[in-house]
Amino acid sequence: MNAELIAVGTEILLGDIVNTDAQVISRGLAELGIGVYYQTVVGDNPERLRAAICQAKKRADIIITTGGLGPTLDDLTKETLAAVFEKKMELDEASLAKIKEFFARLGREMTANNEKQAMLPVGCTVFQNDWGTAPGCAFEAQGVQVVMLPGPPRECEPMFRHCAMPYLAKLCGGTIVSHNLHIFGMGESEMEAKLFDLMEESANPTLAPYAKENECLVRVTARAETAQEAEALIAPMLDKVRARLGDVVYSLDVPSLEQVVADGFLAENLTLSVAESCTGGLLSKRVTDIPGASGFYKGGVCSYCNEIKVKLLGVKEETLASYTAVSEQTAREMAEGVRRVFDTDYGVGITGLAGPGGGLDDIPEGTVFVAVSSASGTVVRALTSALGRSRVRNGAASNALDMLRREILEKK
Amino acid sequence: MNAELIAVGTEILLGDIVNTDAQVISRGLAELGIGVYYQTVVGDNPERLRAAICQAKKRADIIITTGGLGPTLDDLTKETLAAVFEKKMELDEASLAKIKEFFARLGREMTANNEKQAMLPVGCTVFQNDWGTAPGCAFEAQGVQVVMLPGPPRECEPMFRHCAMPYLAKLCGGTIVSHNLHIFGMGESEMEAKLFDLMEESANPTLAPYAKENECLVRVTARAETAQEAEALIAPMLDKVRARLGDVVYSLDVPSLEQVVADGFLAENLTLSVAESCTGGLLSKRVTDIPGASGFYKGGVCSYCNEIKVKLLGVKEETLASYTAVSEQTAREMAEGVRRVFDTDYGVGITGLAGPGGGLDDIPEGTVFVAVSSASGTVVRALTSALGRSRVRNGAASNALDMLRREILEKK
Repeated sequence: MNAELIAVGTEILLGDIVNTDAQVISRGLAELGIGVYYQTVVGDNPERLRAAICQAKKRADIIITTGGLGPTLDDLTKETLAAVFEKKMELDEASLAKIKEFFARLGREMTANNEKQAMLPVGCTVFQNDWGTAPGCAFEAQGVQVVMLPGPPRECEPMFRHCAMPYLAKLCGGTIVSHNLHIFGMGESEMEAKLFDLMEESANPTLAPYAKENECLVRVTARAETAQEAEALIAPMLDKVRARLGDVVYSLDVPSLEQVVADGFLAENLTLSVAESCTGGLLSKRVTDIPGASGFYKGGVCSYCNEIKVKLLGVKEETLASYTAVSEQTAREMAEGVRRVFDTDYGVGITGLAGPGGGLDDIPEGTVFVAVSSASGTVVRALTSALGRSRVRNGAASNALDMLRREILEKK
Repeated sequence: MNAELIAVGTEILLGDIVNTDAQVISRGLAELGIGVYYQTVVGDNPERLRAAICQAKKRADIIITTGGLGPTLDDLTKETLAAVFEKKMELDEASLAKIKEFFARLGREMTANNEKQAMLPVGCTVFQNDWGTAPGCAFEAQGVQVVMLPGPPRECEPMFRHCAMPYLAKLCGGTIVSHNLHIFGMGESEMEAKLFDLMEESANPTLAPYAKENECLVRVTARAETAQEAEALIAPMLDKVRARLGDVVYSLDVPSLEQVVADGFLAENLTLSVAESCTGGLLSKRVTDIPGASGFYKGGVCSYCNEIKVKLLGVKEETLASYTAVSEQTAREMAEGVRRVFDTDYGVGITGLAGPGGGLDDIPEGTVFVAVSSASGTVVRALTSALGRSRVRNGAASNALDMLRREILEKK
C-alpha cells in the first residue's frame, strides 16, 4: 500500500511554519510498512485543493490530509474531500458535545461557527480530538482510504499516533505498539552496522533507527491482533538489541538522560551539585529542565574564570599553574570542591575548550574533561570533538549525565 | 508570478528529515512578492520526479527544486529537468575546479563520480556552492524559470539567499536587500497591529513579521537597481518602524539579546555575574553560547535550594523567612550577593516558580522576579506567565538580558 500526504494551509506556503506533520506521519507510515510517494502542500484554496485531491486519488491507496478542519470559512478540507468522494455531511453529536465541553472548560463562549467542526462525512470513523477542538476522521470510498487530521502539530502528532495509526494498522489487520530504546555513546552509523541484519530481516516487529544531536534511538514497532500479542513480539527483539548494543542503551521509553538521572537520584534519595566552566550552566539548565529537580539538585557554580574556581570551589592555584584550567586535575578539583561546598552525594566538574578561539598551547579546541565525585572517589572522562561550540558543550553535558546514570546503575 | 517548489529526496518521504528548505524558500519568495501555490516532495525516483516536473511546468511560472544534485546515481534532478525542458548537459570547468579545490582543502581524494556534479544544462546561470560541493543553477525554457538548489539546509539556505534570490530579483528587475529589526517585549499580534497599515501599503520595501519564542522580528526587504538604492528605500522604513515600536526594538540585524549584551559589555569593558534559581543555569548557558563570553562574563551560581542562597550569595535568612524565596527581596539580594562575591560591574538575580507543581501559598506558578544590580543600585522586574515551565524559564532569562541591554544603553 502507498500513501500520499496533503497538507492544507496557506501559512505553510508563505513559510510562516514548516510542515513537521509530514515528517511525523511519514515516519509512522514507514513503521507500518506503508510507503509514501508524494507529500503535497496546498493553500486554503478550494480549486487547488480539489485538484490535489483528484490527483492523489488516481495514484494513492491512502490519502492523509492535515489542516483545514477548523471553524473558519477558509477551512475546507472535509467539504472538499466529501465532494470529491461523493459523501454527504452530517452533524456528529458526540463531537459537538466534546467541542462544547472544551469551551466550557476554558470558561469561554462557543461561537456558532465552531459547530462546523462537528459536521463530518456520513459513516466515517471519528477521531475525537483530546488536544484541541477539531475532530479528525477517516472513511473508505471508491477504493481509497481517506484520513483527515488537524494541522497544529500539538494536535496532529498525538492524533496520528493514537487514532490514525491504530486505524491504519487495523486495515492491515490488528493493532500496533512501539517502544524506543534510547542510546548514548554510540553513533548512528555504528548502531546501524550492529543492527543491520536485524533491520533487514525484521518485518514484524520493524526496527527503525533515529539520530538526535549526540544521541540516537531504535524504535521497535510490532503489529498484531492485540496489544498483548504485539508486546510479545517486541519483547525478544528488545532483548536482542540490548544484547548487541550493551550498556550504551540508557533507557526504554525514557526520552532523555536528564530524566533517567532525575528518576535515579530521586529513587535512591541522592543529591547532586555541579561546577561548570566551558558548559557555562548548560548542564545545570538541563538538570533543571526536569520538573521536580529540586528534590535532588541543590545547585551549581559556573566558574567562567580562574579566580572563581579558586574562590568558590577551592581549586588550588598550583593546580591551575601546573596543569592549566583545562586539565583532568582541574576537573577533578572542581567536582570535589562543588560536592564539598554544596554538601551533596555527587559533584560534577566540567572544564574544557569549547572554541572557537581562546585555544591554549597544546590543547586543541573541543578538549573537555568531565569529573564525577562521590564518597567512593572521583572518576574523569576526557573528551575530544571537532564538531563546534554548541555540540562540544552539549556533548560534555550529556557525558556528565551518562556518567551519573552509570554511577546509579552500579549502586543498584 | 507564482512559483512551485519541488523537493527531491526519499529521506523526506521516509520522515528522516523535515523539509525546512521549503519554509526558507517560501519566506524569501514572499519577500519578493512571488506567490507559492504548491510545495511537492518526491523521492529519488525518475518517473515520479518527471511527473511532478511536468505538472509544475503546466501551472507555475517558476519551478524551484531542492535536492538531487549530488554525485550518486540516484541524484537525478538536473538530468530529469534537462530532459523535460529539452536542454543538453555540458561540463562546467569552473564548477569542476571548485569541486576539486574543495576536496584538496579537506585533504581527501576526489572520486570520479564527483565530476557529475559539474555537468550542467547548456547556457544555464551557475550558482557556485561555497558551502558544499554541488553547484546550483538556473535557466529559462519554454516560458518557465527553472532554479535548482542543493538539498542540505546548510547549503540550500545560503545559496537561496545569496544566489537564487538575487537571480529572481533581477528577473523582476534589480537587486534585493533585507534588514531585520529584532524585538523583545512586544507580542507579534501587538506588533502587527502597530504596523498593519505600513505592511498593507508597502510594496517596496515590504515588511514581513516573524514570531520566535518570546521574541519577534520585522524583516524589511527592498528591491532596486542597485544595493545602494535598495538601502536608500529601506532606511526611512526602518526609522518609521522604530518610531512606532519604540525601545522594544533591541537590534538591527543582531539576532539575539545575548549577542547584543555581549557586544555592549565588551565595548564598555564591563563585567557580569548571575545568580539563578528557577532558571537553573539557563541564563548562564545563554550568555556562554556566545563565543568570547569569557571577555566579560565571570560566571554564576545556580542556587536551587535556600541553603545555597544564604551560604554562597549572602541572602539573609530573615529575607527568606519573611518574604519567601520567590520574592522581589530575595531576587534583589541574590543580584547584589553575586555581584559582590564575583566582584563584577553587574549582577543578576532570578528567582521564581517555573512549575508545574511546587507552588507556594499565594504565589501562582509562572511568577518570577528578575533583579539587576550595579553601582547605581538594583532594579527588579516582576513577571507572570501561564505558558509552562520552558517558556517561563526562557522568558525570565530573556527579561534579564533585556534589562542588561537597557542598562548599557543608558550608559552610552
